[in-house]
Amino acid sequence: MSLQVIFLGTAGSIPTPKRSLPAILVKREDEQLMFDCGEGVQRQMIMAKGGFHKKMKVFITHMHGDHVLGLPGLLQTMALLGRERKLDVYGPPGTRPFLEGIKETVQFVLTFPVEIHEIEEGGVVCDEKEYAIQAVQSDHTIPSLAYAFLERSRPGRFYPEKAKALGVKEGPLWSKIQQGHEVKLSSGRIVKPEDVMGSSRVGRKVVYTGDTRPFKDMIEFAAHADLLIHDCTLGDELAERAGEDGHSTPSQAATIAKKAKVRQLVLTHVSARYDDSSALLKQAKKIFKNTLIAEDFMRIEIPWLDK
Amino acid sequence: MSLQVIFLGTAGSIPTPKRSLPAILVKREDEQLMFDCGEGVQRQMIMAKGGFHKKMKVFITHMHGDHVLGLPGLLQTMALLGRERKLDVYGPPGTRPFLEGIKETVQFVLTFPVEIHEIEEGGVVCDEKEYAIQAVQSDHTIPSLAYAFLERSRPGRFYPEKAKALGVKEGPLWSKIQQGHEVKLSSGRIVKPEDVMGSSRVGRKVVYTGDTRPFKDMIEFAAHADLLIHDCTLGDELAERAGEDGHSTPSQAATIAKKAKVRQLVLTHVSARYDDSSALLKQAKKIFKNTLIAEDFMRIEIPWLDK
Repeated sequence: MSLQVIFLGTAGSIPTPKRSLPAILVKREDEQLMFDCGEGVQRQMIMAKGGFHKKMKVFITHMHGDHVLGLPGLLQTMALLGRERKLDVYGPPGTRPFLEGIKETVQFVLTFPVEIHEIEEGGVVCDEKEYAIQAVQSDHTIPSLAYAFLERSRPGRFYPEKAKALGVKEGPLWSKIQQGHEVKLSSGRIVKPEDVMGSSRVGRKVVYTGDTRPFKDMIEFAAHADLLIHDCTLGDELAERAGEDGHSTPSQAATIAKKAKVRQLVLTHVSARYDDSSALLKQAKKIFKNTLIAEDFMRIEIPWLDK
Repeated sequence: MSLQVIFLGTAGSIPTPKRSLPAILVKREDEQLMFDCGEGVQRQMIMAKGGFHKKMKVFITHMHGDHVLGLPGLLQTMALLGRERKLDVYGPPGTRPFLEGIKETVQFVLTFPVEIHEIEEGGVVCDEKEYAIQAVQSDHTIPSLAYAFLERSRPGRFYPEKAKALGVKEGPLWSKIQQGHEVKLSSGRIVKPEDVMGSSRVGRKVVYTGDTRPFKDMIEFAAHADLLIHDCTLGDELAERAGEDGHSTPSQAATIAKKAKVRQLVLTHVSARYDDSSALLKQAKKIFKNTLIAEDFMRIEIPWLDK
């Protein structure tokens, strides 16, 4: 099952000709999860061939305009296209009055329900059958959330021929063994799940920090993530300024990635001052080699890995 | 003095890869006048090398999201860049609660004053030394304004040598004649302004309809405009649908242009269904030859014409 991360906007605070404002789309089966919703996201969605009718949830990290001002236009375009399916919007307190204020002052009619979930504190904020979304307070200038997409692990593939060969008959015993239990046959023989099933597949994990200074809890929050998408607004030479503004530098993000033992690091929210981001990449790679700088429309496929 | 119209967004309702949402920038000397402010306008401004610190006024036609949702981000980016100069925003009733709602629910601090002028009825809504802005109610699905930029006419150039040759001495008589009055010399000779001055220059006129069905008052409102920018959401084959949605077709816009005797017609607010707009152009040109379809970043220079 494909899990693809599409960077729709990778700018920090102010857009550039190359970078739209922050938005990340995670596509999984027939569902889309959007993280942040900067101005221009509806157009980026059109250009990335994202769907406006699909099952979808939006997760807002914080109420700075560059992360949220694309949401009303996205909703409006969905309505103009006749969306009927509910849209879930998760965000910090303030998400609801923002959307309600827009609905009162800008003339648009929604054709679909919007369910707003304001997140008062961290933890599991969205609990689906095949994945969960966790949130944690990050360390920005205003209350801001980081999010983790956590896919549930899946049992390995079941091989009926192997089961039959070992004398496990089709029926209740198959269910039991598929659920991870040993079964005892009438012959007294014990058959373990690993005798008739492939390796289990560990759920994939993608973490997005939103805007943040480096903070200690992120190391555990992002532990062993397949992909960590981290704030990297300013270069190491501007570390002090980054701290004042509630942002991170390449070295800081790379240090978190290294300590959290993630597989891959992508740096985003890149300040408009960096027309060429290669210096940022160099700074990060000194500490964590498997790093990329996000670019608009960059796509990263997250593979399943066997346990 | 240059007067340039830059189309920053030419889409109708939904953006496309080629067309951003409605916004038109009129550049005149050191001032910028923006008409409508669709989502993405700040990025379009950056790409068109518009200024964020310049003397500027914004004119909103109506409170549909595609015409107004770029305004908060524009203000925020101006503030992030440290703008100090006042920004004037003109629009229909609803402009103020929209902006105040955003200021209350999205975290941003403005570094400059924003003066909001809600336009209750048409007429001259902005009266400057060298130009005025007129508004008139258009015919859309919600209250909507069309705007006219009207530059004041200028007296022709004064030729001192001609005045001296005719015996008009430098001093009060020069001022009098430059202000358009005849002067009587001590010799009894009468010198008229046209004897010592070039042709007067007629002020330039640019009219923008916003979203509208064709309506009769527009003929007078746009009379003799150098440039009429008219709604052209749907082609002639969808005239009924255009009427229902409060929009115009190429033939309707071209008929208005012809009756108003404008010099040039530009069709904008083009529906996303027209990837190729050549059919729209053909429909309009049958009625009014000097027509263009707006494209993002198209620039039209409006020349001074002698009377």
